[in-house]
Amino acid sequence: MSIRTLHIGLGPIGNGVVKQVAARKGFRIVGAVDIDPAKVGRDLGEVAGLDRRLRVKVMADIAAAIKATKPDVALLCTSSSLARVMPEIEAVLKARVPIVSTTEELSYPAGRNARLAKRIHDLAKRARVAVVGTGVNPGYAMDALPIVLTGICERVDRIRVERIQDASIRRLPFQQKIGAGLTPAQFQAKVDAGTVRHVGLTESVSMIADAMAWKLDKITDVIQPRIAGERVSSQFLTVEKGQVCGIIQDGVGYRKGEPLVTLHMEAYLGSPETYDAVHVEGVPAIHSKVSGGFHGDIATASIAVNSVPKVLAATPGLHTMRSLPIPSWYGGR
Amino acid sequence: MSIRTLHIGLGPIGNGVVKQVAARKGFRIVGAVDIDPAKVGRDLGEVAGLDRRLRVKVMADIAAAIKATKPDVALLCTSSSLARVMPEIEAVLKARVPIVSTTEELSYPAGRNARLAKRIHDLAKRARVAVVGTGVNPGYAMDALPIVLTGICERVDRIRVERIQDASIRRLPFQQKIGAGLTPAQFQAKVDAGTVRHVGLTESVSMIADAMAWKLDKITDVIQPRIAGERVSSQFLTVEKGQVCGIIQDGVGYRKGEPLVTLHMEAYLGSPETYDAVHVEGVPAIHSKVSGGFHGDIATASIAVNSVPKVLAATPGLHTMRSLPIPSWYGGR
Repeated sequence: MSIRTLHIGLGPIGNGVVKQVAARKGFRIVGAVDIDPAKVGRDLGEVAGLDRRLRVKVMADIAAAIKATKPDVALLCTSSSLARVMPEIEAVLKARVPIVSTTEELSYPAGRNARLAKRIHDLAKRARVAVVGTGVNPGYAMDALPIVLTGICERVDRIRVERIQDASIRRLPFQQKIGAGLTPAQFQAKVDAGTVRHVGLTESVSMIADAMAWKLDKITDVIQPRIAGERVSSQFLTVEKGQVCGIIQDGVGYRKGEPLVTLHMEAYLGSPETYDAVHVEGVPAIHSKVSGGFHGDIATASIAVNSVPKVLAATPGLHTMRSLPIPSWYGGR
Repeated sequence: MSIRTLHIGLGPIGNGVVKQVAARKGFRIVGAVDIDPAKVGRDLGEVAGLDRRLRVKVMADIAAAIKATKPDVALLCTSSSLARVMPEIEAVLKARVPIVSTTEELSYPAGRNARLAKRIHDLAKRARVAVVGTGVNPGYAMDALPIVLTGICERVDRIRVERIQDASIRRLPFQQKIGAGLTPAQFQAKVDAGTVRHVGLTESVSMIADAMAWKLDKITDVIQPRIAGERVSSQFLTVEKGQVCGIIQDGVGYRKGEPLVTLHMEAYLGSPETYDAVHVEGVPAIHSKVSGGFHGDIATASIAVNSVPKVLAATPGLHTMRSLPIPSWYGGR
C-alpha cells in the first residue's frame, strides 16, 4: 500500500521532495500547501516544475488540506527557523499527522529552541505520531554520519568534519547565497543581516557532542568570506580578483578551551575539489572521505523522503537522526 | 550508574572486549565465563592479558555466573556459528539478561539460520530483553555503513563494497587464518574444510538487500587464494613467489542474473594499501573511502561495547544493526 503524502512548502527543496516522491514507488501524493497566492489553486506538477500534471491542487490552508486529503505523513519544507514553522507544525499535529521536515533548526533543537522542541514532543506524543527534522546538512553529512563512524571506536578524542564544495557547478541562487560576486564589505553586510549563512552548525555540533556525552561550555559559529585569488567564473557569474568567491563557515564546540568538535565548511567558485571528509581522532583514528561530496539539493530531498517510513514506524514524539534506525534508501516495498 | 557486564567467551575477541570494558567509563565487569578448564578459576584480568587483576573469577557455567553476579548485559564472544551458540543464548535469555554478541551468523540471520533467529526473538520477547549480533564485519563495514550511505540517495541501482587489508601488519593467527604461506593445494584443502573463510558475507548481502527491498534470487560466497607474484614477508612469516599470500572472498547478491550487491574482500601480505570503500551506483552516486580501513580486531570489540547501551534501551526481541539507532562511541554518561 502506498504512503499518502502531503507537501507543505513548495520552494526549491519542497519541489525537490515532490519530484522524488512523484518518481518513486511506494508513495501517493495526495495534497500540497503553500502560502504563495501565485501557487495556490494550480496543479502541483506544474508548480513543482514536473513535465506532467499530478492532479493535486495546491491549497493555502494546512488544516483544510489534511481534512480533504487524509495524508499518512506531511513533508514540511518551508523555513530554516523553528520559531517560524511552529504554527505549521502545530496545525499538522493537531490533525494527528506525522511530520518529516527539512527545517534546519528542527534537526537537533539546541539552545533557545529547546523549549519549542519540548512543545513539539508533547504535542506529537499526544497525537501519537512521530516528528523528525532532517536534511543533508544538518541531519547527515556533518552530524549523523560522523557519529556513525565513531561506532567502531574504542576511544574518541576529537572530531573534525570538512564539507568542501565547488559552487561553480551549483545553481545560481546557491552561488548568490554564498556571496559570490560581492565585495568583502557587501558580504559582511549580508552576514550581519543574516542572509549569507548556513543554518545548522550549532545543531550539528550539539548532536555530535550529545552522542559522545561531551558537555560543551561553548559553541561558536563563525562566517568568513573566501576571497578570489584570481578571476573566477561560473556559468552564471564572474568574480574578480579580490572580490568574494564564496563562504567559509566554522562551527566549533569547546570544552575547557579545547575544540572537541570542528565542523569546517567551504563553498566557493573555483574549489579544486568537492568532498565530504570526517576525521575522528581516537583509537582507532578514522579518516573517511566521500569524493564528489553529498550533493546538497538532491541529498536533502532524498533523506527527507527516505525518512518517511522510519517516522511512520517510530514511537510517538520528536525524533532526531540519533534516535531513528540507520538511514537507508527507500524505494517502496 | 555503571552497566554491569558479564563476559562469555575469552578468546581474542572476547578478551579484546574485556580490555575495552575495563578501560572505559560507565561499565563494571561483574562476571566471566569460559569453557576452557585452563581459564576457569583464574582472575579475568590475568586471562584477558591485562596488567592488573580484575577481581572477577572466570566461571564455567553461564547460569551459575548470572545468578552469582547479576549482570545488566552479557557480551557473548564464543563462536561464529549461530547453531553452536544457541545453548549459550538460551541460558542467558532464561535468566532474562540482554545480549550483545559477536557471533557472525547472528548479525543478520539468513537462510537456514532464520528458524534459530525466530526462536531467539521469541525467547527474548518473553524475557523482555533485547539481543543483537554485531561486529566490524559483518555488522558494520560491509553492511550497516553502506546502508547508511544510501540514506541520501534518490535512487540506488547497485552497491559495491571493498575491504582491502594488508595482512602483514596483523597478528600471526590472522595471517594464518587467511592462508598466508600455504601452497595453492593446501589452501584449497582448508577452504574445503571450512577453516580458511570469512564468515558473514551472506549475512551482509542479505542485510543490504533487505534494506533496499531487493528480492534476491541467489547469493554466492566464493573464496580464492591470492598468489604471491614475488617473495613477500611479514614479521612472522615469509611467502615464496607462487605460494598463497592471502585470501580473496566475494559475496554477491543477484536478481535475475544481475549482481546488485557485491562485497569484495582481500586480505593478503603485501597489499599496497588498506582501506574500506563503498560505491553506490545511483542518484547521486556515492564514493566513500576510509583510508587505513577499519581495524578488524579493535573495531569488532569496540562496536560490541558501543552497542551495549543501545541494546539496553531497545524494545525486547532480536535486533540487528538495521533496527537499532545509529552506532556511536560510548564513553559513559
